[in-house]
Amino acid sequence: MSASEPIRIGVLGRGTVGGAFLELLTTRAGAVEAATGRRPEVAGVLRRNEGSFDEILERSEVVVELIGGTDPARDHVLRALRAGRHVVTANKQLVAQHADELFEAAREGGVQLRFEAAVAGVIPVIRVIGESLSATEITRVSGIVNGTTNYILTEMAKTGAAYEDALGRAQELGYAETDPSDDVNGADAAAKMAILARLAFHTSVALDDVAHEGIEAIKPDDLEYAKQLGLSLKLLGVAERHSGAISVRVFPCFLYPGHPLSPIEGPFNAVMVESPSTTEITMSGPGAGGTETAAAVLGDVVSIVSGDAPVHATREQLEVTSDLESAFYLHLEVADQPGVLARVADVLGQNEISVKSVVQWGMGDDARLVMVMHQGPEGRFYSALNELAELDFMRAQPRAIRVVEKEFV
Amino acid sequence: MSASEPIRIGVLGRGTVGGAFLELLTTRAGAVEAATGRRPEVAGVLRRNEGSFDEILERSEVVVELIGGTDPARDHVLRALRAGRHVVTANKQLVAQHADELFEAAREGGVQLRFEAAVAGVIPVIRVIGESLSATEITRVSGIVNGTTNYILTEMAKTGAAYEDALGRAQELGYAETDPSDDVNGADAAAKMAILARLAFHTSVALDDVAHEGIEAIKPDDLEYAKQLGLSLKLLGVAERHSGAISVRVFPCFLYPGHPLSPIEGPFNAVMVESPSTTEITMSGPGAGGTETAAAVLGDVVSIVSGDAPVHATREQLEVTSDLESAFYLHLEVADQPGVLARVADVLGQNEISVKSVVQWGMGDDARLVMVMHQGPEGRFYSALNELAELDFMRAQPRAIRVVEKEFV
Repeated sequence: MSASEPIRIGVLGRGTVGGAFLELLTTRAGAVEAATGRRPEVAGVLRRNEGSFDEILERSEVVVELIGGTDPARDHVLRALRAGRHVVTANKQLVAQHADELFEAAREGGVQLRFEAAVAGVIPVIRVIGESLSATEITRVSGIVNGTTNYILTEMAKTGAAYEDALGRAQELGYAETDPSDDVNGADAAAKMAILARLAFHTSVALDDVAHEGIEAIKPDDLEYAKQLGLSLKLLGVAERHSGAISVRVFPCFLYPGHPLSPIEGPFNAVMVESPSTTEITMSGPGAGGTETAAAVLGDVVSIVSGDAPVHATREQLEVTSDLESAFYLHLEVADQPGVLARVADVLGQNEISVKSVVQWGMGDDARLVMVMHQGPEGRFYSALNELAELDFMRAQPRAIRVVEKEFV
Repeated sequence: MSASEPIRIGVLGRGTVGGAFLELLTTRAGAVEAATGRRPEVAGVLRRNEGSFDEILERSEVVVELIGGTDPARDHVLRALRAGRHVVTANKQLVAQHADELFEAAREGGVQLRFEAAVAGVIPVIRVIGESLSATEITRVSGIVNGTTNYILTEMAKTGAAYEDALGRAQELGYAETDPSDDVNGADAAAKMAILARLAFHTSVALDDVAHEGIEAIKPDDLEYAKQLGLSLKLLGVAERHSGAISVRVFPCFLYPGHPLSPIEGPFNAVMVESPSTTEITMSGPGAGGTETAAAVLGDVVSIVSGDAPVHATREQLEVTSDLESAFYLHLEVADQPGVLARVADVLGQNEISVKSVVQWGMGDDARLVMVMHQGPEGRFYSALNELAELDFMRAQPRAIRVVEKEFV
């Protein structure tokens, strides 16, 4: 193809993102031509009940997949790649579940597969991890990669609202879907962290290996006590390199004020990448909205026309481990009777868990012990937690939330 | 060259960054080979009194310029580009002062010129603005792009130290040089903002067109009052698009707590890019240290071997304007006599400047008026400032600092 031929783009899917992408393609056609030397042109749009995938494939040089889900998206994308068409997708489930197969098909077809919009919307985290930092030894990637839950937690912290009320408000504002399950239980964040872990550590990561907890059990109390301890609560995705292994997890977590992710509020996303040679780099911006996602997709189209892409080959086989150390916040509702603190401290001590701070709130029937532990093996902490739950003066199930202890700046 | 040939890299300069780069090249050789398919190899190192540029040029495929300054760096880089060698440089003065000539030479030679390390160290702001967002209509780029001054302002705010003492501390810690002039007067930040403005707006930006103020005149008082008003003080670079024109400036500035750049403390850098389709993206990380800069340089080498680079052609001719609107903080030391506030308010009112908040501190000889204005034309504010300075009850030169009024999140 000569430099003056148009970039023929086939668009699969015509929902919110598809509509925003088609609009952006019109308004920014001049900018795309200035950046690439070629004018973009829509080769066809596949709607649910309209258009033929085969015809669009035939006419396209780049296929943009905005259907979502894995069926029929997986089949379409595989066929496009094998037929020698570049593919841009915003589909995190597709990439998280089928990365190996997709990258293999791209190699077979001699074409590029780009997916910047699949994680953290328009924040260029895929490009930065996969390209800028490709020769850097990344040790940890931490992210707030789900805007819905970050909005809910921000709302709970600011207004003291209960989880259900904050969720309702998020739904009113369009930040949460009618069925918010995948967002609030951490599954959405888990898919995104699987993708980031693969790029950062050059190893296959099965989605099933990503342990995830959600925010459904967070109580306004936790946020209130945390505020008094100077902490903020985030649903954090963390992918870490250990010796010969990695861990990839999603869990609610307290952060100290100096942590680069601690100021990220509302529906925003942010990703922090740590390595010995770069200390840490943090990128933040709006989570996935229609226009933002469309802008990320268009950026990928420009990149494809401008040059090669990294192949994201796996070159390591790293175990996924869950043998990890963490610091914990512990919230206990106890009967207000003599010796309670001593018994709790005894259980913790026998499990070799070191207490950093203790605060006791309330009196009478309603006494609460809020403690923050130093970092230690998670297994020991969970043993202690089980023992504590059995104590006769415990008036409710103990609540435990991880705390990131590391101090920044 | 075949895929199995080594990447022959000529290194110009063997200072802190040069040493860190050579070390990183050794420790990360395997990662570079995994990312590019080719092993890196040092073709030669040019020291001040050792090595021949011509011989190194002859043997190199990529020339890495880490000499700094413009002479002989400019000559070496131009010759390398024209001889068909890719060039990576960390040299902000070189790129800020000679961008047109350098990009022209790269086009002539059919090679790439990359300079990620020239702005904000390892934060991939050049790649993000020049590539990810190349089809996006960027409206504003704001940055904390000088780590020395951000460290000094953070130290002053935290400890109440005077400017001179905070500077001394920065020098002890290696965050400031023996002659810190270019850092503290804003010239270093101005060079970096000229580079970012060029990439964001696709227009030539002469370094002389970048107005800059430094932080030498900041008093501990300003930071103390600001804290009480809930503001933080940063040396900000701002490049903005106006209709048919741009502005590029560096100045100390107060930020409200929700501003994405407000949590950036110590020697860190951060850049925020705003556009209608992406809201704002913020990237932060360590400013230039030897290892961080070397990591950014190595990332550029990998990018060169992996594919094409954007040419950063200018495609617009935009005027640089200084006809701008700002909000201001105003600090007045006045004699404590009746009618002072009325006279001040009268001068502001006659210049159509709207006051947002007023606080009066102290009594007797030492009365201070601290005011924050709403946004308005800068020309009107400076007229008022000149009139205020002439009032007979003014006990010191009025101090004015800009305030970013925009609320985020």
